Amino acid sequence: MAVSTHTFQAPKGTRDFYPDDMAVRRYLESVWRRVSVNHGFDEIDGPTFEHLDLYTVKSGPEIVSELFSFRRAGGDTDYALRPEFTPTLARMYAARANALPRPTNWFSICSFFRAERPQRGRLREHFQWNLDVIGEDYPRADARIIAAAVDVLDRLGLTPGDVQITLNHREDLEAMLSHYGFDGSRLVEAIALVDAVSKLPADEFRRRALDLGLDAGRWDEFAGALACRQHAAQGCSMEHLQPLHEKLEEFGVLPWCTYAPSLARGLAYYTGTVFEVHEVSGTERAVAGGGRYDNLVELFGGPPTPAVGIAMGDVVIRLLLKDKGLLEPARDFRPRPDVFLICSGKEVAEQRFESLLASLRRADLHVRHSSRSTRNVGKLLGEAARVRARCAVILGDELEQGHVVVKDLDTGEQSDAVPVDGLADRLKKDLAGAAGSP
Amino acid sequence: MAVSTHTFQAPKGTRDFYPDDMAVRRYLESVWRRVSVNHGFDEIDGPTFEHLDLYTVKSGPEIVSELFSFRRAGGDTDYALRPEFTPTLARMYAARANALPRPTNWFSICSFFRAERPQRGRLREHFQWNLDVIGEDYPRADARIIAAAVDVLDRLGLTPGDVQITLNHREDLEAMLSHYGFDGSRLVEAIALVDAVSKLPADEFRRRALDLGLDAGRWDEFAGALACRQHAAQGCSMEHLQPLHEKLEEFGVLPWCTYAPSLARGLAYYTGTVFEVHEVSGTERAVAGGGRYDNLVELFGGPPTPAVGIAMGDVVIRLLLKDKGLLEPARDFRPRPDVFLICSGKEVAEQRFESLLASLRRADLHVRHSSRSTRNVGKLLGEAARVRARCAVILGDELEQGHVVVKDLDTGEQSDAVPVDGLADRLKKDLAGAAGSP
Repeated sequence: MAVSTHTFQAPKGTRDFYPDDMAVRRYLESVWRRVSVNHGFDEIDGPTFEHLDLYTVKSGPEIVSELFSFRRAGGDTDYALRPEFTPTLARMYAARANALPRPTNWFSICSFFRAERPQRGRLREHFQWNLDVIGEDYPRADARIIAAAVDVLDRLGLTPGDVQITLNHREDLEAMLSHYGFDGSRLVEAIALVDAVSKLPADEFRRRALDLGLDAGRWDEFAGALACRQHAAQGCSMEHLQPLHEKLEEFGVLPWCTYAPSLARGLAYYTGTVFEVHEVSGTERAVAGGGRYDNLVELFGGPPTPAVGIAMGDVVIRLLLKDKGLLEPARDFRPRPDVFLICSGKEVAEQRFESLLASLRRADLHVRHSSRSTRNVGKLLGEAARVRARCAVILGDELEQGHVVVKDLDTGEQSDAVPVDGLADRLKKDLAGAAGSP
Repeated sequence: MAVSTHTFQAPKGTRDFYPDDMAVRRYLESVWRRVSVNHGFDEIDGPTFEHLDLYTVKSGPEIVSELFSFRRAGGDTDYALRPEFTPTLARMYAARANALPRPTNWFSICSFFRAERPQRGRLREHFQWNLDVIGEDYPRADARIIAAAVDVLDRLGLTPGDVQITLNHREDLEAMLSHYGFDGSRLVEAIALVDAVSKLPADEFRRRALDLGLDAGRWDEFAGALACRQHAAQGCSMEHLQPLHEKLEEFGVLPWCTYAPSLARGLAYYTGTVFEVHEVSGTERAVAGGGRYDNLVELFGGPPTPAVGIAMGDVVIRLLLKDKGLLEPARDFRPRPDVFLICSGKEVAEQRFESLLASLRRADLHVRHSSRSTRNVGKLLGEAARVRARCAVILGDELEQGHVVVKDLDTGEQSDAVPVDGLADRLKKDLAGAAGSP
């Protein structure tokens, strides 16, 4: 059969995760999951593909070109690979709104898809953490989302000097736009324009702003207001953000926050707070983003329900962590073996090797061994150290007396006559003890 | 906008995972992952969709109708949602064959898709554990795969009385078919026929078998041979399975194994061992299945490489575990909170509640609290017990003296004057100590 050369490669914009890469992905997921659980959120998931309508309801028919959509052969239903989680979340909440607690605290970690041209920081398939509070009002729920995001950044080894969460409130933004003369009936357009400020040439931006009503004599002042940033530790001068500021102070996360009167976020459905996480130099894309969306659950068939959420993809945060040296060496993110089993003897040791290996694993120990045929204990201990095994168990001639050698690879301590009977229990006890010590 | 009623439901054959269901899914995944790691396997993953060709290369063009396939709008490349993992695995191995260790031990846990009519035990999207040894010969690698599968079944609470792994060897099967007169040049058809034995009416099966060369006078004998089962603990009378039998004995897993001379598995690419995991009554579909596929890596552009693997989906095993009462109550599979925080006092307690909550979470504790407004400590302790919190921290009037009440919800012990300063460290120490005790 004729096969194109591309067949044996991953599709453009997708990734193969070999073990080192996969270990880093699991590390990231484990931080997301642990923080979510600690903060009182429950994990959910939906299907990888949804009815296409679910996305056009929220975003209009223009979304279709950005989606991977398909039908079953001979079927008449259009599906799409999910590009984001919010429609699934709103649908699931709406379906059980009456039975769910208030607030409902949900998180999810799953794959999302975009049919766009792949570029730095943006792939066709990526993994994303979603964290949402449904049924709790501003500002407490918003502050809880920010506090959990801070906890994630902190655990990943980042500091407020590396990343900042920029915040704004749609009502503060609208008040500012009105203040500078923007047409109150075209605020959605004005917000979209502000969102695009960094992507447009300055004169093009100015022309469009004037067209939307900006008072021409106040252009300089308006441009200055857009560029303004206020670090949260220095207080909050924005009226609608003030209540959130007080909660963020109570939660102890002000050092991580910056107020940005121009932060817009393009999506039309945000109704209050909006926020983004950026590397402080601002050179990469946003690490995470979110906001309050009080009208969305209703749009998906549920009762009127306030809600706020954040999403963090795996692509930009990995670039950032790598850049900061926080993912090196990748090998260290793999699970540490409890035991590295070494055969240094002949006959008895060889005969017992496989059954001892099997019995240690059945006892819930993570056991590795060399795939090389060498009997050089020094070389094999070197291999054990490279995979970061916690201890080595050496089967030598002592096995004839029913003994093995156990070497603690963290402390270097060696026990030369450990009974092979009850070995698994003994190792588990030693390892549990060591885990508790510094 | 007109929206079909189905828009707000998950697509047919897919699932919404609300928290209890999700917790069970994570439990299953955690057992798969832990066993895989203990047994020396490294986790990998590939894209959720692949080039369509990747599947037609292996399975021929007839596979297309069973796949969800699609193109990007305006694009000319055909993609398909992955229906199984083996082509991705073989592609990834082939791409780095020279740099990878021998054997390479890989596992993955991810979503797979089938465009078939959904039915009991078979959905359009399901999760599946894949475990493969690449580059190691029969029988050791095969026995390692079986031993890991046994470990999974055992940890899930199943026994050899609940499930059995049925095994066969393609060469034993071929020898049997030849023995009964089947045409040696049509063995692929004969194997497919044997695989379909339970799905065909007896006379139809007989007619086809005779057409493929079965010696008419030996029909009864052949039918008897097909129905034959030999429990591994009673020995192995099959020539090509004998070396595997010895390894399985060494690994201590014979009680879980049954030899079945008629086990065929439909897929043409198996080259040696084939196996399936079944509930002993045989009423449900197979829980897991796999075999040796020594020619597949080469088909995907790699060097000739022996390989063997198993796959277990989440759908049938969940039905089975549920049936055995091993997933009840689902709520118990959720993560246990470390602390349930209760506000029983006024003023100081109310003022400190939010910041104490935030600081305990920042200290890596899983902290929950009631969303109800009651101050009834008895009711709140009841809620803490229902979510299986390990301890309750009660903020009452003692907080004016800098103290809180801590109640261990496992032992019932209560400490009435625990200093609020250093509370997180104290709780973590207590909880770590309790985890070590029985």
